[in-house]
Amino acid sequence: MNKDVTIVGAGLVGTLVSIYLAKKGYNVTIYERRNDMRKVKMSAGKSINLALSDRGWKGLQGVGIADEIKKIAIPMYGRYIHNKDGSNAYQPYGKDEQAIYSVSRAEINMKLMDLAEQQPNVKIHFDYKCNSVNKHTKEVVFENTNSLQVITKNYDLLFGSDGAFSASRLSMQLSNDRFEYNQHYIDCGYKELIIPPGPNGKFLLEKNALHIWPRGSFMMIALPNPDGNFTCTLFMPFEGEKSFAQLKTKEDVKQFFNNEFSDAVPLMPTLIEDFFTNPTSSLVTVKCFPWTFDDSIALIGDAAHAIVPFYGQGMNCGFEDCVVLNELVEKHQHQWPKILNEYQNLRKPDGDAIADLAIANFIEMRDKTADPKFLLQKKIEGNFSQKHPDKWIPLYSMVTYSPQIRYSQALQSGNKQQQIMDKIMQIPNIENIWDSNEVEQEILNSL
Amino acid sequence: MNKDVTIVGAGLVGTLVSIYLAKKGYNVTIYERRNDMRKVKMSAGKSINLALSDRGWKGLQGVGIADEIKKIAIPMYGRYIHNKDGSNAYQPYGKDEQAIYSVSRAEINMKLMDLAEQQPNVKIHFDYKCNSVNKHTKEVVFENTNSLQVITKNYDLLFGSDGAFSASRLSMQLSNDRFEYNQHYIDCGYKELIIPPGPNGKFLLEKNALHIWPRGSFMMIALPNPDGNFTCTLFMPFEGEKSFAQLKTKEDVKQFFNNEFSDAVPLMPTLIEDFFTNPTSSLVTVKCFPWTFDDSIALIGDAAHAIVPFYGQGMNCGFEDCVVLNELVEKHQHQWPKILNEYQNLRKPDGDAIADLAIANFIEMRDKTADPKFLLQKKIEGNFSQKHPDKWIPLYSMVTYSPQIRYSQALQSGNKQQQIMDKIMQIPNIENIWDSNEVEQEILNSL
Repeated sequence: MNKDVTIVGAGLVGTLVSIYLAKKGYNVTIYERRNDMRKVKMSAGKSINLALSDRGWKGLQGVGIADEIKKIAIPMYGRYIHNKDGSNAYQPYGKDEQAIYSVSRAEINMKLMDLAEQQPNVKIHFDYKCNSVNKHTKEVVFENTNSLQVITKNYDLLFGSDGAFSASRLSMQLSNDRFEYNQHYIDCGYKELIIPPGPNGKFLLEKNALHIWPRGSFMMIALPNPDGNFTCTLFMPFEGEKSFAQLKTKEDVKQFFNNEFSDAVPLMPTLIEDFFTNPTSSLVTVKCFPWTFDDSIALIGDAAHAIVPFYGQGMNCGFEDCVVLNELVEKHQHQWPKILNEYQNLRKPDGDAIADLAIANFIEMRDKTADPKFLLQKKIEGNFSQKHPDKWIPLYSMVTYSPQIRYSQALQSGNKQQQIMDKIMQIPNIENIWDSNEVEQEILNSL
Repeated sequence: MNKDVTIVGAGLVGTLVSIYLAKKGYNVTIYERRNDMRKVKMSAGKSINLALSDRGWKGLQGVGIADEIKKIAIPMYGRYIHNKDGSNAYQPYGKDEQAIYSVSRAEINMKLMDLAEQQPNVKIHFDYKCNSVNKHTKEVVFENTNSLQVITKNYDLLFGSDGAFSASRLSMQLSNDRFEYNQHYIDCGYKELIIPPGPNGKFLLEKNALHIWPRGSFMMIALPNPDGNFTCTLFMPFEGEKSFAQLKTKEDVKQFFNNEFSDAVPLMPTLIEDFFTNPTSSLVTVKCFPWTFDDSIALIGDAAHAIVPFYGQGMNCGFEDCVVLNELVEKHQHQWPKILNEYQNLRKPDGDAIADLAIANFIEMRDKTADPKFLLQKKIEGNFSQKHPDKWIPLYSMVTYSPQIRYSQALQSGNKQQQIMDKIMQIPNIENIWDSNEVEQEILNSL
């Protein structure tokens, strides 16, 4: 005990873990590279939305701040599919009350900063960029981004929660022999767009749903915000036939959107302007190991396991890191060598699993949510799961609503389920007998 | 033309590519992080040996320096297997005259530096460490490791040939969106040891062979040097039952070597001292993409594709990079955007292939060279290949003696051959009918 904890990065995970550690009695100092976003108005079109689900809520509940966050979150009870021909379909995410919650990244981050600073033993310093970490001397070097002054800080414990392009992780990559490291970009990028509210803050699409326009090799999604607007994101290959590279002129964009997303275009008055103003961003998966060093450094959140956003689990996974860490602080009674060792051994397989699931869900959302065969399979699974909830929890539910199931277990069960369903979907005339006793019995036999 | 070429690193590939470019009329300046090894005596036990084979020779021949290098190389015509029970076996590498050549890394590097400096338009600066590369301003920053003075150099063309832990590549990793990067360490490390010459420089093992002591999870190898000694390398897991972690005391080492390498121990008078003096080093595979940037930067050699040493192809692959680059300079008549683009598109799949082959050969050398079934398979392949040299070139020969076959083609053919041999080895009583017409026909049918 009596340890000074230094945290690199005041993002979602850095702030949450600071609250957990403060409540356990540690003195926590956070250094954040950016300026204090609570004092600077965010520019429109950059407020990426996140989907908070049960693992995330559990992380917030653990320090009693879930109710505060719920105030800025909008429940989404299912996927609302917008087909190219103008028709729609609604796929509930799970059972009646199950939902995921749309929150603005900036809003939840600012709220978490407030809540962290309400702890008497948490202090956040803004405009401090991490230059390097020296694990031998237990020193971290920060540079003030305004004055360019460099300070060296000693730490007892250091958490690197500085995101997918973590400077603290880079220091570990460069100073540790046998550091496993992999960064992989999918060939698809994304661009933020917006559907503003109608008159009197009216939601112009169904409010309590995650909207998807699946189009095979690309897709658009939209998530609701409390002020009535929707944050839209276009995911599309960088290169190729239908790609960002092809959309060079205003006319290109207009024609493309009219062709592909004709029902959305009338709701997007600033489409053309936004398209050329907002950047096209890339999507990275980072896997590395180890996550902890010399019994005194731990990577956490995206710094340890950056994933693509297609399972809506990036933030949720990071919050779960905090929950697991907190449990281990209790279990090992503040003995950090034991805590950190078990933390990385427990969390690494789960981080790998959700990274792989997120890539797989990219394919699913893009290619399959409009595929009748896929929809039938989901219907069969849902039907069977309702009859035998003890025998079959759909993969999406395991990941999203079942924090008691580890990501790595969910992946394993999901693979087994897929094998079974591959066989089931081969049954002749399955379209007509999908809810028959025969099919039910066949699944039961396969389990 | 009229371009100034800057090369980062005066290792094997940096020096060779400098000669190629000088002969094409470019002004080349090399910056090397280390001091000039020709002026400082290398300490014994650190002179790692390399196996030069046909791709490497082709690279040297291309600038007319193969004969110079042959003077410091010793041909090895096969593997000399030392079994645990004291028995031996000899496996020729290929046809009669086919050999790979043992060279000391330091010796060949020093010779290549001499040959590079014989070009009027090549200059090598030692003790200059690359700090960063700025592709936008076309500037590279070097720091003198003695004076700590920092210089900024403009380049027209920059080659990063600074090895597996390349600083120039790191600059690209940090400044390029969508840079694919993977570094992976095998769980096995290595330690250099030595078998000194006998009286009058006598070779105490068969001179013209690569010696292997295969032991399943670990192995030792020995390569000859011109002065009569053998450079030995122990490859072994870092952790586990038989591992570096288990060899803590002099007694541990003595007992382990007496048990495992009893025929070598009498030839290794400084074994215990060397074991504790020499470091245990790790083995990394690096894959990345792109290899070229902004039509003016190229990674080459280990900086682009560091591989494990088990196919003896690291240097050979790097030299082949130079050959391909040189061909493209001619083909595209010094138009570097075209040269660099085709260079990376051609070489990336070959770099990936030899990386994977090297990992596979690690398993083969360690686990299988003592396995009767594996030896029988090699005998069948050799037999068939001799009868039908147009239909079957063994994988090892494709990689080692067939520079006209790309690594990626060799890998593909090798996989196909393995599938065929898997079936052949299932034939009942194959031990006795391995050279029968039936087996020959079976292979012919499978092709």
